[in-house]
Amino acid sequence: MKDFYVDAKFRVRYAETDAMRIVHHSSYIVWFEEGRSEFLRKIGMPYSKIEESGYFFSVVEVRAQYKHPAVYDEEVIVRTRLVEVKTRKVIFYYEVLIASDGKLLSRGKSIHVSVDRDNRVVTIPEEYRNFWLQFVSEVGADF
Amino acid sequence: MKDFYVDAKFRVRYAETDAMRIVHHSSYIVWFEEGRSEFLRKIGMPYSKIEESGYFFSVVEVRAQYKHPAVYDEEVIVRTRLVEVKTRKVIFYYEVLIASDGKLLSRGKSIHVSVDRDNRVVTIPEEYRNFWLQFVSEVGADF
Amino acid sequence: MKDFYVDAKFRVRYAETDAMRIVHHSSYIVWFEEGRSEFLRKIGMPYSKIEESGYFFSVVEVRAQYKHPAVYDEEVIVRTRLVEVKTRKVIFYYEVLIASDGKLLSRGKSIHVSVDRDNRVVTIPEEYRNFWLQFVSEVGADF
Amino acid sequence: MKDFYVDAKFRVRYAETDAMRIVHHSSYIVWFEEGRSEFLRKIGMPYSKIEESGYFFSVVEVRAQYKHPAVYDEEVIVRTRLVEVKTRKVIFYYEVLIASDGKLLSRGKSIHVSVDRDNRVVTIPEEYRNFWLQFVSEVGADF
Repeated sequence: MKDFYVDAKFRVRYAETDAMRIVHHSSYIVWFEEGRSEFLRKIGMPYSKIEESGYFFSVVEVRAQYKHPAVYDEEVIVRTRLVEVKTRKVIFYYEVLIASDGKLLSRGKSIHVSVDRDNRVVTIPEEYRNFWLQFVSEVGADF
Repeated sequence: MKDFYVDAKFRVRYAETDAMRIVHHSSYIVWFEEGRSEFLRKIGMPYSKIEESGYFFSVVEVRAQYKHPAVYDEEVIVRTRLVEVKTRKVIFYYEVLIASDGKLLSRGKSIHVSVDRDNRVVTIPEEYRNFWLQFVSEVGADF
Repeated sequence: MKDFYVDAKFRVRYAETDAMRIVHHSSYIVWFEEGRSEFLRKIGMPYSKIEESGYFFSVVEVRAQYKHPAVYDEEVIVRTRLVEVKTRKVIFYYEVLIASDGKLLSRGKSIHVSVDRDNRVVTIPEEYRNFWLQFVSEVGADF
Repeated sequence: MKDFYVDAKFRVRYAETDAMRIVHHSSYIVWFEEGRSEFLRKIGMPYSKIEESGYFFSVVEVRAQYKHPAVYDEEVIVRTRLVEVKTRKVIFYYEVLIASDGKLLSRGKSIHVSVDRDNRVVTIPEEYRNFWLQFVSEVGADF
């Protein structure tokens, strides 16, 4: 099965915890985005460059499942895969793991459409699409 | 079709916007939670009281769809419905609307399991469950 | 002593708490901004309108003192005063209080310079300055 | 002049930006905390261990000055120094720099008192104090 992923590793910030003493569930959504940023950086097309060229990935759907909690100071990995690239749509798949033992904390998915500066849906330029298609994974595609 | 909902109304904070000049998608997850808090307050069983009694709603899944962006200072409504109450699980459904014209910005859903102080899944006390069952809606149940 | 203030009232969100089970200190900075927004709205010149006219309040300094913690679900008031209006600078002063008994949780201050769309410091238009000068308070000016 | 500091390096997250397309000023407060966490980790006494022993650094004051804005994806450094250790109080000083050229974005300071689990001010254990005193800097002490 075709697979390619990029890992982003960082520690849980105190501000990301909540009164249950664990990471607040909304923090994972921010982490997914950080994973996506790292993915695009690593394949050589940082999101900041995409934006400069006038294209934006507008989030149209996000989904997260929570398996185990994380606490302050723990080192976590966000493992990001690109699972679909269509004419106007891309889908990313995420796993958040404890860095030390690989325990799965959360799984997630985000669906994006390509928009211009005025937030109008536009076709993804073919050169971008062809470039990204090289990095598409089959793992996580069924989430 | 049976329906009951609670509205929470507030304005978009500047800190909730991002470099696209619109509300960041993770802010909606926080708003859903605020909608849930308001729902529980309005039916007379604030979440803070539930926590005091030793029960917690651990989030096991969250999902959001984004239809239209919101900008700083706009007044929004989070409309919350309780759509399922099981022995160990409750499901909430959310709509985020522009307060002035009712335009739908986002829809969401969150699935919770009942846990104790040590984060162990426990059965929801029958009196809680029976109380909540009065407020269950059929609208949004298919999201 | 000349005094004028605007109150913004809302409840503590769960996402604003941290692992100490109290509101994270960075949340107060966001609340100060919400107080400032409400102040400008109430005097009839919402910040969104100021931005539309091409002026921005760039934050150059912020300061907060923390007296007592707040917890989830508590209703708090952010009491905002405008304490200085200069050619290129405005200063706001904030108090965060428990809504029910007026207990002081935090005091804060923010200093802003007027900038244009390209983040260059510019003189505040005289009509804005004269309008704001009516609402300047002496209370809090020494913070 | 005695000096010791610890650097934490990371990239600006998209969620940390605001509608001015720059990092929101409240994000720096979270970054200071991350700098503080890294400082304590590096000197061999992570804050998570301090908390486990029953002591907490309650924030009683925080101050930030903003010199230049940061944008999404930029790599920044939070340079943290411990500038005061008293019987019940510690003070940290922070500089946020652009990683590539050392440009100063922000300076900050946080004052903490030592509290126990019930948020009561307590004396910092002498062994902790003596350990920390080795790492106190004179640079930044006048901020």
